[in-house]
Amino acid sequence: MAYTIGLDYGTNSVRCVLVDTANGREVGTAVYDYPTGQAGIILDKNDHNVARQNPADYVKGIEATIKKAIRQAKKVVKKFDAGQIIGIGVDTTGSTPLPVDKDGTPLSMKPEFKRNKNAQAWLWKDHTGYAEAAEITELAKKEHPEYLAKCGQVYSSEWFFSKILHCLRTDAKVYEEAYSWVECCDYIPAVLTGTQRPELMKRSRCAAGHKAMFNDPWGGLPAKDFLVKLDPKLGELRDRLYKRTYTVDSEAGKLTAEWAKKLGLKAGITVAVGAFDAHLGAVGSGIGPGKLVKIIGTSTCDMLVSETERQLADIPGICGIVDGSILPGYWGLEAGQSAVGDIFNWFVNYIQPGGKVKGSHEVLTKKAAKLRPGQSGLLALDWNNGNRTILVDQRLTGLLFGQTLHTKPEEIYLALIEATAFGALTIINRFEEYGVKVSEVINCGGIAEKNPLLMQIYADVMGKEMKVSRSAQSCALGAAIAAAVAAGGYKNFAEAQTAMCGVKKTAYKPNAENNAIYKKIYALYKQLHDAFGTGIMANVMKEMLNIKDAYV
Amino acid sequence: MAYTIGLDYGTNSVRCVLVDTANGREVGTAVYDYPTGQAGIILDKNDHNVARQNPADYVKGIEATIKKAIRQAKKVVKKFDAGQIIGIGVDTTGSTPLPVDKDGTPLSMKPEFKRNKNAQAWLWKDHTGYAEAAEITELAKKEHPEYLAKCGQVYSSEWFFSKILHCLRTDAKVYEEAYSWVECCDYIPAVLTGTQRPELMKRSRCAAGHKAMFNDPWGGLPAKDFLVKLDPKLGELRDRLYKRTYTVDSEAGKLTAEWAKKLGLKAGITVAVGAFDAHLGAVGSGIGPGKLVKIIGTSTCDMLVSETERQLADIPGICGIVDGSILPGYWGLEAGQSAVGDIFNWFVNYIQPGGKVKGSHEVLTKKAAKLRPGQSGLLALDWNNGNRTILVDQRLTGLLFGQTLHTKPEEIYLALIEATAFGALTIINRFEEYGVKVSEVINCGGIAEKNPLLMQIYADVMGKEMKVSRSAQSCALGAAIAAAVAAGGYKNFAEAQTAMCGVKKTAYKPNAENNAIYKKIYALYKQLHDAFGTGIMANVMKEMLNIKDAYV
Repeated sequence: MAYTIGLDYGTNSVRCVLVDTANGREVGTAVYDYPTGQAGIILDKNDHNVARQNPADYVKGIEATIKKAIRQAKKVVKKFDAGQIIGIGVDTTGSTPLPVDKDGTPLSMKPEFKRNKNAQAWLWKDHTGYAEAAEITELAKKEHPEYLAKCGQVYSSEWFFSKILHCLRTDAKVYEEAYSWVECCDYIPAVLTGTQRPELMKRSRCAAGHKAMFNDPWGGLPAKDFLVKLDPKLGELRDRLYKRTYTVDSEAGKLTAEWAKKLGLKAGITVAVGAFDAHLGAVGSGIGPGKLVKIIGTSTCDMLVSETERQLADIPGICGIVDGSILPGYWGLEAGQSAVGDIFNWFVNYIQPGGKVKGSHEVLTKKAAKLRPGQSGLLALDWNNGNRTILVDQRLTGLLFGQTLHTKPEEIYLALIEATAFGALTIINRFEEYGVKVSEVINCGGIAEKNPLLMQIYADVMGKEMKVSRSAQSCALGAAIAAAVAAGGYKNFAEAQTAMCGVKKTAYKPNAENNAIYKKIYALYKQLHDAFGTGIMANVMKEMLNIKDAYV
Repeated sequence: MAYTIGLDYGTNSVRCVLVDTANGREVGTAVYDYPTGQAGIILDKNDHNVARQNPADYVKGIEATIKKAIRQAKKVVKKFDAGQIIGIGVDTTGSTPLPVDKDGTPLSMKPEFKRNKNAQAWLWKDHTGYAEAAEITELAKKEHPEYLAKCGQVYSSEWFFSKILHCLRTDAKVYEEAYSWVECCDYIPAVLTGTQRPELMKRSRCAAGHKAMFNDPWGGLPAKDFLVKLDPKLGELRDRLYKRTYTVDSEAGKLTAEWAKKLGLKAGITVAVGAFDAHLGAVGSGIGPGKLVKIIGTSTCDMLVSETERQLADIPGICGIVDGSILPGYWGLEAGQSAVGDIFNWFVNYIQPGGKVKGSHEVLTKKAAKLRPGQSGLLALDWNNGNRTILVDQRLTGLLFGQTLHTKPEEIYLALIEATAFGALTIINRFEEYGVKVSEVINCGGIAEKNPLLMQIYADVMGKEMKVSRSAQSCALGAAIAAAVAAGGYKNFAEAQTAMCGVKKTAYKPNAENNAIYKKIYALYKQLHDAFGTGIMANVMKEMLNIKDAYV
């Protein structure tokens, strides 16, 4: 019997699962809420773009969760022995970089920087670098358009260099003191394996991929002269970053004796190279060729892989076609919708239809479930937070039509769910138009777990069965699978996944009658989508945003 | 000193004003709520299209209101003498026809029909004749397209012949017993003057106009063979209807001695020919060449007049270009928006944003008033109840775009107000495109009285001063003015209006800065309007309605 541990560093907490590598059974789980800030996030009341985290929370979470999971396993499995644990895998949010010194110690752990937010980890959703992101996009457009081709034509404020450049521009003290910057998903494995020193640390292919614009064919990270043009000091930093990246089947190192003792594990067991949560979530959900994994929560991440021996054209609107970013030996293809659950949350929390109690998700869902496709006459575009795939355009907004003098809240709620389903179908269609077949759809994430109405509508709209990942902890399970492969428990991911993950028995099957109606409605959605996205109406949302922005 | 009385028969009650003809001062007013049905309307729980009224309520209302108004006048004006009252004018809702016998007695007043809803008055908003309306439209399209040219290409279920034909098809007993059908606005003056017998009764030009497709150039009512094709019995009825119509400066007759005694008035005083409420409301608000009167309530009626010596082209989308329908000697031009206040009511009552208390009109208005034009980024189309003018298309629906994850209820509320302002501007533009200049805008109705935010937005959007009619009872005042003219107190309406009506001192003046922003937003509204109304997107609302209608 062999077990592995998956550590999943989320936005508010870290989760740990202790998994039986023979069958994927989760014999122990634990959650540790980050103690610093609000729900684990350090905010700034004067700047809503700030979102930081305390790296010390990450480290505390290792011990708190692993020890608890082991205690639990001992209760669940007779004769369980922590010595049977052969590896640890790690996934984290990203891009979540933190500045470190020459020894790899986060600056935030040094007394002189303790109170400096810029010395902390810059959480994925920190948007302080929005101006720098625009600057990077602008320069890349002129000088290295290939950098943008892999990331959907726009470099985001959520990514590595936007954050570092913003620090350089606004906090010289932190920037000067930082010997290097590391992604959270590289930092944790390095801590466990004593490879914190930047030159020892193995960097994740997944994180480096489009988020740091790393690509072997063009020589790894963006060219030095490119970074120098942004700022000479950014150019200098390039030499202190990394030249090589590793896929999740690689070993980041061996668990140190010190950590082994602290955790009650065997020293020297494998710690796998880390990756971002969505990517290992896809692994834990059983991603493989033709198997689309949708992680559905406040937004979605839609992931697919395609054999690297096969040449892939750049698929318009698919941001992030990176060799090995999800599975070694495969192109990782990443798409997504900028808002899904967030749109329903907006309607319930901001519009508060019918009052707070009457207009809860539960009540609206119950009423919406009684409506048939198209019965309300409403049709919406799911663009309240822009459109990540396939339009790659943040300057888009929500749209709803079909309102009469009798339109009810639950009808709007349903139209919003349907709109996200139509958006999801548009992503699948785009993959297939470019020859990447989607033969199976596996869903995971909070909404896939908890919203049968939405899942059934997705099945009806797409005309495909919606499967749900068996594990409610797909990301952590994916990390545990990576650990099993890196530790040599399986010779590849396909074998590990076959043994360790699967889908729930009951899938959502499409209703043919509903699908026929939704086909008609989708044609209208697509007409709206194209007209407002890129066609004859494409100016109106942008011009309204221009008028709105003039007030900011 | 001379006084006149205006009786205004509304949907739920009749109002009376007793007016000093010298200056329009309202020295007595009274309201009588119709006692029958729900708020004066007889409904049918099995058919939401049914809306009837009890003609006996109308008659009771005459005495109840006039006597009360006279009592009030005696308190207000020293030495007031009811003998100084020289005339009575009447306006009513319409088309509100009722079946009568050979003596002009409503069938509903006969014992055998007392409980029969079809023997009552068919209130303007009764929609039971929707299939018959479609049938009339269809036949007119083929055989007499000129009938439709004056009423915006579609004959409505709210109008005279749709209702009568529906009665013919569904209640032979009532239809056979009815010698004739009369509009409510013809019935009341006939009662007061003892001219109830159909061949004596003077019929209103205004009511006959497009609502009964009456037009002198084509020989009055629709041709007999046309009505015969709809149903031979409808053809027979034509001979028992009317051949001549009268404008509101005409006398319907003299007050009978019996009614004079009952009301405490002089026998033999003038009772003017009746008209629809909106038309006399326009008169009471001071309509004249270049002076657009907007009656703003749940929907709007936008009225304008143009000298009949001037030839007018049919103006596309303006339904009802009738000689003398508003003022004698002028083309009456009628336009309107199918929903204005109803859209805000929908949002507050059906969506109930922020709960019932938080989302009241008052709270939303207060919050919306703090927003600047375009600050929310939202833009809406005011089509929740279709578009009467200029598209004349009921198969349109509301649209809203610009939603983000932070859009608030008051922002939507403001966008809905702005949408109705843009719709109102589109009507003015259409008049002016066809050479009917709008030099002044006078508003009346509940919203004009009570919603300064809306009025200011209208001024800002249109770049025109929004004046408000001085009287809160413009319709009843218009009826009193008609009485003054018909009784010979003034030689024409212009003189009577100059003396008797006016606008409030404080008008809403356009803010130039807001107007500049609204000009930009209006261009986007118009782009949406044209695309979804008649252009490249015109199919989507209709196709969604087709899908919706398949469930009905």
